[in-house]
Amino acid sequence: MSALLMAIFFRGMNEKETLKLTESMLHSGTTVDLSHVPGFKVDKHSTGGVGDKTSLILGPIVAAAGGVVPMISGRGLGHTGGTLDKLESIPGFNTQLDLGQFKRAVEKIKICFIGQTKEICPADKKIYSLRDVTATVESLPLICASIMSKKLAEGIDGLVLDVKFGSGAFMKDVKKSEELALNLISIAKGYGKKAVALLTNMDQPLGAFAGNSLEVHECLAILKNDLPSTNASQHRFFNETRELSLQLSAHMLYLAGLASDLKSAYALAEKTLSSGQAYQKFEELCVIHGGRLKELPSPKQSLQVFSSQSGFVQKMNSEAIGICGVLIHAGRTQVTDKIEPTAGIEFHVKIGDQVSVNQPLFTLFGSNKNLLLLAS
Amino acid sequence: MSALLMAIFFRGMNEKETLKLTESMLHSGTTVDLSHVPGFKVDKHSTGGVGDKTSLILGPIVAAAGGVVPMISGRGLGHTGGTLDKLESIPGFNTQLDLGQFKRAVEKIKICFIGQTKEICPADKKIYSLRDVTATVESLPLICASIMSKKLAEGIDGLVLDVKFGSGAFMKDVKKSEELALNLISIAKGYGKKAVALLTNMDQPLGAFAGNSLEVHECLAILKNDLPSTNASQHRFFNETRELSLQLSAHMLYLAGLASDLKSAYALAEKTLSSGQAYQKFEELCVIHGGRLKELPSPKQSLQVFSSQSGFVQKMNSEAIGICGVLIHAGRTQVTDKIEPTAGIEFHVKIGDQVSVNQPLFTLFGSNKNLLLLAS
Repeated sequence: MSALLMAIFFRGMNEKETLKLTESMLHSGTTVDLSHVPGFKVDKHSTGGVGDKTSLILGPIVAAAGGVVPMISGRGLGHTGGTLDKLESIPGFNTQLDLGQFKRAVEKIKICFIGQTKEICPADKKIYSLRDVTATVESLPLICASIMSKKLAEGIDGLVLDVKFGSGAFMKDVKKSEELALNLISIAKGYGKKAVALLTNMDQPLGAFAGNSLEVHECLAILKNDLPSTNASQHRFFNETRELSLQLSAHMLYLAGLASDLKSAYALAEKTLSSGQAYQKFEELCVIHGGRLKELPSPKQSLQVFSSQSGFVQKMNSEAIGICGVLIHAGRTQVTDKIEPTAGIEFHVKIGDQVSVNQPLFTLFGSNKNLLLLAS
Repeated sequence: MSALLMAIFFRGMNEKETLKLTESMLHSGTTVDLSHVPGFKVDKHSTGGVGDKTSLILGPIVAAAGGVVPMISGRGLGHTGGTLDKLESIPGFNTQLDLGQFKRAVEKIKICFIGQTKEICPADKKIYSLRDVTATVESLPLICASIMSKKLAEGIDGLVLDVKFGSGAFMKDVKKSEELALNLISIAKGYGKKAVALLTNMDQPLGAFAGNSLEVHECLAILKNDLPSTNASQHRFFNETRELSLQLSAHMLYLAGLASDLKSAYALAEKTLSSGQAYQKFEELCVIHGGRLKELPSPKQSLQVFSSQSGFVQKMNSEAIGICGVLIHAGRTQVTDKIEPTAGIEFHVKIGDQVSVNQPLFTLFGSNKNLLLLAS
C-alpha cells in the first residue's frame, strides 16, 4: 500500500481509477442505509477553513425545510477546526452515537451529527496513517478518495461541496481548488450521486469568531435572528457567515428538489432561517444529542491585541491565525490533544478595513490568561 | 522502504544519492577485509547473458598473472546463468565457504569463488524482495546500488564491468547499457575504487555452449589450449569466449597495475593462458573448493534440432534460448528450483551464418530425453 500510495502520488490517477479506489475504500466497511427514511438525503462537505461554522446553520435550515441531513463530521486538526469539536462545546452534547442511534435520529428529526465510527471506511484511516508517514498526503486523487469514500458511506443522495481557496485553505491556489472540486464531483457522479461545488474564498477567517463555543455563540445568534446591533464589525462578520450558510443551504435544497430553481431555493432557506424554524431544528438536534444549549460556556479570560500602526488591512494569514488558535488550545496538533472549548479569537477587522493606531485588531479568549499572553 | 523504492523508481536518484544508498546497503552487513593479502584485488562483474562463462577463465588468468581475485558470485535466475551453478557442476565443488575460509583461500591461491553469504549486504536481499513485489526492479539507481553494494563488500581495489546490451541482455538498448555502466563506475569511483566498463554485445549467446557442465567443458578446453580441431563451428565459438575472456583479463591486469598499458596487459593475459598457468590456477582452485575436475559429468541424452529452411541466420533470441535452457532444467525460474548440471544447448550456427535445409541448428543436452523433446 505504501508503494501504491507513492506511485499514485507521482503518477496521479484518472477518473476511473480514482472512482475504483474510492469504492474499494468505501466497501472496506459499513455503509449507512437510509432508504427507509423518506426525503432526499443531502450533505455538505467543506475542505476546511478557519472559522468555518456553516454546518451548524445550514444543517438545521435544510432539515427544517424538508431535506434529510445525515452528517458524519470530523474533528479539528492543525489550523482548521472541526464540526464535532464545535458541537461538543455545548455541555452534554454527545457526538459519539453509534450507527443505529444515528439512523434513528435521522429518521426522527431528519438531521444528526456524528463522528466517523470504526465501521465506516476503516481502510481510509489505515491509508491515511501510511500517507502521513510516506509524505503522500498532498495527492489530489488520494484526497478525493478519502473525502468521498466517507461521504458516500453516509447514505446520501446528493452532496454540496464547499471547496476553499486562498491563504487559509488547504488548496491555496484557485485553479487547484477547481481541479479538486471537479474531481470530487466526478467521483460523486460516477457513483450515481448528485453533486455541486462552490469555490469559496478563505483568504481570511469566516465570520467574527474562531474557536468552538465562540463559533456556536455566533451560529446561535444567526439562527435566532439576533445579530449584534451595537457592534458594527460583529454585525458585518456574522452576516458573512449567515450569507455563506444561506448560499450553501440553497444549493442543498435545490439539489434535493425542494425548489425549482436556485433563486427560490435561496428564498426557502432564508424564510426557514428568519422564521425561526431552523433554530427550532437546532434545539431538537441538541435534545437528541443530549446537549444543554443554555449552559453554553463563555470564556473567563480575554486579551485584546491592538494595532501598532495605522493603515489598511492588506491581508490576513489564516493559517497563522489557526496556529494561534492551537496555541491557546482552541485547536489541536495531535488527535489526542485536549481542547479548551471556550478558547478562541474574535476578529475586529478584515481585509480592506482601515485601522488606526491602538485600534483593537482581535481579541483572544480562553480560560488561561498566561496562554493568551503567550499567544499574543 | 516500499514507498521509498517507488519514489526512486519514478524520480530516479542523482550520483550522490545513489552512492549514499549503496553505502547504506553495504554497511548493513559485513565487509571483507583483504588488506593483509598483498596485491591488487580486482573482480569482474557481468550484467548477465546466455552462455557467459568468462569468469571461469579470466579469474584464473588474472590470479596466475599476479592479481588477487576475490569473487562473490550469484546463481542463475530466469534466462541467465550463474557462475556458482557452473562451478557446482564439477562434482564436489563447494561454493558454500564461509568468509573465514574465503579469506584464507584468497590469501593462499589468490582466488576464490563463493556465493553471497548472510553476512554480506543483508539489506540488499530484503530490498530486492520488496522491489520484486512492488514492481520496482527495473530502476537504474536501485540496480546500481544492488550490484555495487555487494561488489564493494568483497574488499576489492578495482572492478571491471562487463555490461551487456542486445536482445539477450538485461538492458537491451546500448544507450541504457552505457548509462548503467557510467552509473556503476561513478559509484565505484565515489567509493574510492578503480573501475572500468566494457559494453559487450549479447544479441546472441556467448561461445558454443549454454548449460552448466557444458560451459565448464568449454572453459576447460580454452584453459588447456585444447580447442576442437575437427569441429569448425565449435572452434570458432570457443574462440569467441576465449577472446572476450582475454579482453576482460587485460583490463583487470591493467587496472591492477600489472601492465603499463592495455596492449601489454593483453599480451600478459594471453601468455598466462597459453602457457598453461591459468589452467594450473584453475586446478588449484578446484582443490581448494573440493571439486573433482576429472569427474565432470557429460550429458547422457542429446537431441539435434535441424533447420526446416535454407537461408542466413538473421537473429537469435537469446532470451528465448535462455528460457529453453530453463525448460530442460539448465536454469531455474525460482531460487528453489533444482538444476540438472549436464543440461544445456550447443549452438551450431550464429548470426550471419548460412544455413541449408536439414542442417543442425543446435543440440539440446540433458539426462531426460522427454524434457529435450518437449523443449525442441
